[in-house]
Amino acid sequence: MHAITIPEPGGPEALVWDEVPDPVPGEGEVLVEVVASAVNRADLLQRQGFYKPPPGASSYPGLECSGRIAAVGPGVSGWAVGDEVCALLAGGGYAEKVVVPAGQLLPVPEGVDLKQAAALPEVVCTVWSNVFMISHLRPGETLLVHGGSSGIGTMAIQLAKAVGAKVAVTAGTKEKLDYCAELGADILVNYREQDFVAEVKQATDGAGADVILDNMGAKYLDRNVQTLAVNGRLAVIGLQGGAKGELNLGALLNKRAAITATSLRARPLAEKAAVVAAVREHVWPLLTAGHVRPIVDRELPMAEAAEAHRVLEASDHIGKVLLVAP
Amino acid sequence: MHAITIPEPGGPEALVWDEVPDPVPGEGEVLVEVVASAVNRADLLQRQGFYKPPPGASSYPGLECSGRIAAVGPGVSGWAVGDEVCALLAGGGYAEKVVVPAGQLLPVPEGVDLKQAAALPEVVCTVWSNVFMISHLRPGETLLVHGGSSGIGTMAIQLAKAVGAKVAVTAGTKEKLDYCAELGADILVNYREQDFVAEVKQATDGAGADVILDNMGAKYLDRNVQTLAVNGRLAVIGLQGGAKGELNLGALLNKRAAITATSLRARPLAEKAAVVAAVREHVWPLLTAGHVRPIVDRELPMAEAAEAHRVLEASDHIGKVLLVAP
Repeated sequence: MHAITIPEPGGPEALVWDEVPDPVPGEGEVLVEVVASAVNRADLLQRQGFYKPPPGASSYPGLECSGRIAAVGPGVSGWAVGDEVCALLAGGGYAEKVVVPAGQLLPVPEGVDLKQAAALPEVVCTVWSNVFMISHLRPGETLLVHGGSSGIGTMAIQLAKAVGAKVAVTAGTKEKLDYCAELGADILVNYREQDFVAEVKQATDGAGADVILDNMGAKYLDRNVQTLAVNGRLAVIGLQGGAKGELNLGALLNKRAAITATSLRARPLAEKAAVVAAVREHVWPLLTAGHVRPIVDRELPMAEAAEAHRVLEASDHIGKVLLVAP
Repeated sequence: MHAITIPEPGGPEALVWDEVPDPVPGEGEVLVEVVASAVNRADLLQRQGFYKPPPGASSYPGLECSGRIAAVGPGVSGWAVGDEVCALLAGGGYAEKVVVPAGQLLPVPEGVDLKQAAALPEVVCTVWSNVFMISHLRPGETLLVHGGSSGIGTMAIQLAKAVGAKVAVTAGTKEKLDYCAELGADILVNYREQDFVAEVKQATDGAGADVILDNMGAKYLDRNVQTLAVNGRLAVIGLQGGAKGELNLGALLNKRAAITATSLRARPLAEKAAVVAAVREHVWPLLTAGHVRPIVDRELPMAEAAEAHRVLEASDHIGKVLLVAP
């Protein structure tokens, strides 16, 4: 088969479409013939050499895919050759074939295009596990999503609105904020021109955000804590603004607030399977009913993964960038 | 009645035993004739002018007491004049009488002395709500308790051992650590001579602590994060080492860990009542069975509250310091 390899870490040109051996499914795994994968920020870090795949994972990038099951390994039940699926991966999605632990497979939701389903696993699992399983966003509460027009952001807006929460977003252009509003966002903050602490407080009568989904890390840490409501929960899922920042524990204590930081990729199989099962139970019906949909900025041929990485680095996209297998 | 008043913030001598008006129970409250109160670190801050009572609370210090119900306000059921009780207070415990919301009352556990029961409410509610309700310490997990010989520490050791957890403690003298060991602590760290990060990691085969109960805040923040296990939870309940410290979100993310910071005093009545109800359900049977007991360093007359504060400031005590009403 072919896959995107990274012979040497570097810029987008470090991604090389090359012939590689076919992977073979082991105990509890299936082989998926990939129709599409999607680009995540973590892939950019991996390409630069800053994010090594966890032990046992494929060395090729790609944290999600859609496709058809081509072979079923021993000890797998409930899945058969030919099934149309999408999957959460620890790596290897930028390829014509990938091996997937059965616990990380999801059926393609009714009414969703097989190719577009590649845009779902990573964002749905990340948003559901952080905003709902860890931070317990409840109907009537306010969620603040940084980067509201990103793949994660566009899914977070839709899921939070679907459960009856109020949604605030930050983004860097009017066009992005307009799109967030179309998806249902209630409070729009242009972070280049406005102070999100003041804007969110004003729009919530001084209460602040009950849950914050943050991809900026250190750069926003103090302002996020300022923005939290009493009993607020800050869920950090990215460190685009650095890893080390000053935390005001006094402010956190006065608010009886919580900070969590997680990633999906390094979790043990059993934890990933639990997230995938919860997503199938709670989010799949929303997709089937059309209340939530994959948001795709553009599709590119998988061999042009370098161009896809340039698109993410330029940050002019809205939603996910897909890589379509040949 | 008499109560300890604070005419001007300052040192221990700022505490004045004075004649004051009797409090009157309102809707949903009872009047308790105080037998004993106990000293908490928050009382020292209040005496110094750094910790204002929350709105509506008594201006006298004292966050817990034991005694007998002397009057029952309207709308209270399940409690009668003469009942022997202990209670979690938002203030006013250093007095001959105090008004208590009914949701914060607990019966004196069978087999526990009425006076000694004053040592229970604050530590039991703080430990139970943080270590179990918020941080979900499970059997077989490791709890690290800073200040293992304090009132909070001695209760945390007992409760964690009672549910089958492993317990690590820090303290500043061999005498204090010996006492922690008698209560069941498994891993003893003299913080003056040893590095708690290294000691806890070594004693857990490199895994670290699943839950940390911390009273030091900023001073220990980075080392606490280093000590956390994968999926670890840091529960901050005090800021004796300062409020603002550097947080390594990258380390937190790699461990998929959580930081919470809470205090009991400022919580709304309904949340306090929920904690008290959980304590009555889960901890009271352990007290009645003798698996857990109040640890009292010494008893002093309530009029000598200044001396009791000096004892806490010297930090040579083990467990709680009681103030006995005349």
